[in-house]
Amino acid sequence: MEKERVSAIIEQIAQYGKGTRGVNRPAFSQAEKQARDYMIGLMQQIGLEVTIDEFGNICGRLEGTDKNAPAVITGSHLDTVPEGGNFDGVVGVVGGLAAIERLKAQGPLTHPLELIIFSAEESSRFGFATMGSKVLAGMVNLTAWGKAKDQAGITLPEALGEQGLSFETIRKAQRSKDTMKAFIEMHIEQGAVLERNEETIGVVEAIAAPTRMKMTIEGEAAHSGATPMGDRHDALVSAAMIILAVEEIALEHSHRGTVGTVGTLKVHPGAMNVVPGMVELWVDIRGVDHDSIIETLQDIKDTVSDIAEERETPVAIEVMSSEKPVHMHDDIVDIIENVCHKTGVVYRRMNSGAGHDAMNMAHLVPAGMIFVPCRGGVSHNPDEYASIDDIMAGIEVLTGSLYELAK
Amino acid sequence: MEKERVSAIIEQIAQYGKGTRGVNRPAFSQAEKQARDYMIGLMQQIGLEVTIDEFGNICGRLEGTDKNAPAVITGSHLDTVPEGGNFDGVVGVVGGLAAIERLKAQGPLTHPLELIIFSAEESSRFGFATMGSKVLAGMVNLTAWGKAKDQAGITLPEALGEQGLSFETIRKAQRSKDTMKAFIEMHIEQGAVLERNEETIGVVEAIAAPTRMKMTIEGEAAHSGATPMGDRHDALVSAAMIILAVEEIALEHSHRGTVGTVGTLKVHPGAMNVVPGMVELWVDIRGVDHDSIIETLQDIKDTVSDIAEERETPVAIEVMSSEKPVHMHDDIVDIIENVCHKTGVVYRRMNSGAGHDAMNMAHLVPAGMIFVPCRGGVSHNPDEYASIDDIMAGIEVLTGSLYELAK
Repeated sequence: MEKERVSAIIEQIAQYGKGTRGVNRPAFSQAEKQARDYMIGLMQQIGLEVTIDEFGNICGRLEGTDKNAPAVITGSHLDTVPEGGNFDGVVGVVGGLAAIERLKAQGPLTHPLELIIFSAEESSRFGFATMGSKVLAGMVNLTAWGKAKDQAGITLPEALGEQGLSFETIRKAQRSKDTMKAFIEMHIEQGAVLERNEETIGVVEAIAAPTRMKMTIEGEAAHSGATPMGDRHDALVSAAMIILAVEEIALEHSHRGTVGTVGTLKVHPGAMNVVPGMVELWVDIRGVDHDSIIETLQDIKDTVSDIAEERETPVAIEVMSSEKPVHMHDDIVDIIENVCHKTGVVYRRMNSGAGHDAMNMAHLVPAGMIFVPCRGGVSHNPDEYASIDDIMAGIEVLTGSLYELAK
Repeated sequence: MEKERVSAIIEQIAQYGKGTRGVNRPAFSQAEKQARDYMIGLMQQIGLEVTIDEFGNICGRLEGTDKNAPAVITGSHLDTVPEGGNFDGVVGVVGGLAAIERLKAQGPLTHPLELIIFSAEESSRFGFATMGSKVLAGMVNLTAWGKAKDQAGITLPEALGEQGLSFETIRKAQRSKDTMKAFIEMHIEQGAVLERNEETIGVVEAIAAPTRMKMTIEGEAAHSGATPMGDRHDALVSAAMIILAVEEIALEHSHRGTVGTVGTLKVHPGAMNVVPGMVELWVDIRGVDHDSIIETLQDIKDTVSDIAEERETPVAIEVMSSEKPVHMHDDIVDIIENVCHKTGVVYRRMNSGAGHDAMNMAHLVPAGMIFVPCRGGVSHNPDEYASIDDIMAGIEVLTGSLYELAK
């Protein structure tokens, strides 16, 4: 598959969910369904046998000469954040397709090859990230997931139902370790390290762990004109203090690679002429240094508690998820690095600040990741961009690595 | 109309739009339609002739002995903010009905009496307040109103259309000054001055003017895990600084009766794992001291400009509305005060921090307002409460004042 064709496929996928501002292709949406159907067609065209599991994960498989050998797997996702870009996830799906097509053309390998398109990688719709790979790895929290709702109030079970899937059966999609030999995901970096150092490939050693908290700030709704400033318990003012505290504390910890973000909040009742009575806000903390993450969380909790007391606006903190950094398998890292050497691309070993399906796959099989640069480090944004030359270099390294594992 | 009946009517209206948290009866909604239909029935029962104008304002009229005499008018509104209470607006509508019923029972008066139920008093749906009375007073901005949208993206013309009204014709509802002699609105105070001083009636001298601004903060959306703290242009962090600045500046000006509120904001793209790229927020400034309002606005603009520069997140400020404080007519204030004296209720002359339809009616006819206390000064909130005894005292003062004007 040559670069014009890779470009054309990426461009075609970008049409599904294209809005006035970026791409909107949430998990289990109609737009994602269109992109999935398009990819299924391409997978079948190159001779992959396509199956879809109980959570909607798509698997395209090419048999090897040894029918009983465990599969060598690559893959990524097609869902996007709201107002997202054209490359996050898509590069790994299209890159995986291109790599398997090349390997097929080179002649039969011992191990089967698989391309997996994971469902619901982005947390933006239901508040849980990398759900598809969690299902494969048996890391499902049925109780919490069953209650998960999107901003329109649609639950995950309802969204699955709309796609003809049943929430009750998703555990059946768990995969046995015996069926898999290795997993490699290709992805855009989503940071600016490669670009800044003029490197083409990142060989990922560890993936930062996200901790997510929801804070609910209780104030007192009141008329914005008739309530004197001194009589107020404005939940949004307390929320503003919390946002600045998260920023400040994360800055203090940033030399250890930890970052903190308030990505969204919701004001109740949310009218111009009402002092806000309640605010819900969501905090995302990440890092590769477990101690630094723990300290950051404790500092945030202490400060929030002070703000709640000072402003007389109680704050409830709910830890939604808390994950440990995940290390890629040394053997896979070495294989990818060797392929980089052989092909002569400029690469570096590095960590991933963003979470990926490879985190969960690493619980099942030796896993690795290949990063390609993205312009300005920008992702989750309409301006997200990766050059076709960098993507083709990534495909070359992915092809070589899968070959080493499957030969 | 005795107090049990007044209570029962208020309670019945509270059923229309009752939600899990307060009453949701936005302008031109189905719930408001139910409340309107219920009131029309009651108005017809006591013998009022009901007409509905091009903006949906309801007028119930009782003729006087002089067919050509200008009308003495009372009225208020039935729409609520999201998660609102049972009394804001409703007290003036039901109180007006009770007053006119009493006057009818006492025998014919010279002037006709009218009860007007104004459409779209609350700004929470379309961003413009007291729209119904603005239409009557000819204070319509067709261009701006035509573009107004609610949070679901429904435009004002569409919402009017759903109620069988046509946006194109709303100017026809403008009323000639000649047809009106006076206007008195009864309303809950929405502050705690009467309660704190154990007074039953507020005779309003001036109504504070709201100035509304929309600020759009442009940051840069980026991945929350992979974007180092130092590389960010987080629009929500800038928004938090603006929220605290509005609070601080309003506190400095509060001794002159000026208040400032950020009542709502919207985060784009609004996902847990994306550094906010854009925030829209709405500021509401009010006061009765014009100089203080001007200074407050200037201080806010200066500070916002500093924040925008420091954080490298440009902020666009759009002044949506800017009104001057409105003084009630001396003659009406005196009439209401005299009736208070005669009936022996404890009252005070005071200002209104909240805006009311009486502001716009004051441009057409001599206007006044009667306040009744509300518990803790709370309004725009499910906890909003006014005692039936205070409401009945208000009805007595309203009845006496309308009688003086219409006799």
